Amino acid sequence: MSETQRFRSILEHAAKLIFQNGFEATSMQQIAEASGLTKAGLYHHVKTKESILVAINHYGLDLFEEKVLNPVANIEDPVERLREAMRRNVMLVTEDSSKEVTIILHEHQTLHGEVQRELNARKKKYVTFLESAFREAIERGQIRPIDPTIATFSFLGTVLWTYKWFRPDGKLDTQSLTAGMIDLFFAGLLPR
Amino acid sequence: MSETQRFRSILEHAAKLIFQNGFEATSMQQIAEASGLTKAGLYHHVKTKESILVAINHYGLDLFEEKVLNPVANIEDPVERLREAMRRNVMLVTEDSSKEVTIILHEHQTLHGEVQRELNARKKKYVTFLESAFREAIERGQIRPIDPTIATFSFLGTVLWTYKWFRPDGKLDTQSLTAGMIDLFFAGLLPR
Repeated sequence: MSETQRFRSILEHAAKLIFQNGFEATSMQQIAEASGLTKAGLYHHVKTKESILVAINHYGLDLFEEKVLNPVANIEDPVERLREAMRRNVMLVTEDSSKEVTIILHEHQTLHGEVQRELNARKKKYVTFLESAFREAIERGQIRPIDPTIATFSFLGTVLWTYKWFRPDGKLDTQSLTAGMIDLFFAGLLPR
Repeated sequence: MSETQRFRSILEHAAKLIFQNGFEATSMQQIAEASGLTKAGLYHHVKTKESILVAINHYGLDLFEEKVLNPVANIEDPVERLREAMRRNVMLVTEDSSKEVTIILHEHQTLHGEVQRELNARKKKYVTFLESAFREAIERGQIRPIDPTIATFSFLGTVLWTYKWFRPDGKLDTQSLTAGMIDLFFAGLLPR
């Protein structure tokens, strides 16, 4: 296991504990045990509980950039770029392995100040990416002239709310879910 | 102020404190002070911090039923019923007064057991209501034959994610937001 993989594994274990028991109730000792490390071993990677929380958030954004944003950034057709972003993002948030990382990224509220501003700036990049793609698609006449900001947040809500209700063992599989969501959302954008 | 109004005011103050400081870090004393009550006065209304949390969740669902579900339940046309539900629900979650109640309703994770099952059953009613309306609209040929479950969760994501990003002092007003979201979502359902 590389250093990066080991660190990510610590963050995934920590995210599960924080999600289950709350941030206050989770101790460094518990995080070490869950990760199969001694407390000294854990401190080699990370010094404070707050810095683990910050690292979980950045890990969630790293995963998002690796699996969603970077692979679609160079797709020339803006509608194709948006469709592929939706497909990849639904896949990411319905993946069981990083579920708690995703929840903490979107719901944890104890971080403030500079740390929170940095995270918000990274999240904002996705909003700007989506707005630009909608704008480009409108200019090219591929979609009708909707408000790019409203389209962006409808897109994000449709995609991100999924982690709140989707169960991999339910009656819908991710393939059908993704195809259905893309069909519904992009049909609303068609020129009349 | 009626007893109900007084109780709701306590719940709104408690929700703000719990949202700001976390559930563990919030004391009954702080909730009493924020509500302008003595501790004895607060205990007249509610006995434990956990029961306040439960009451905040039920209050969030009461507000939702009063302002969204009940007023639209008897609209005969299923598409009109869905449009009006979307309009009213966006208005509710963008209202500043009950913002923290909404966030706790959708994000707080410490409740379990029977209490959580009751809350889930109340939330489930809305899912069933939406699925039935989509199904009815398909049967009547008003919308194309999409998957009612995917449509339901796309609807919910679009609407509920709003509380995470919408700012009343931002460049979008609630009227334009609601109109834009309804236009985008329902255009995707039109028969081809």
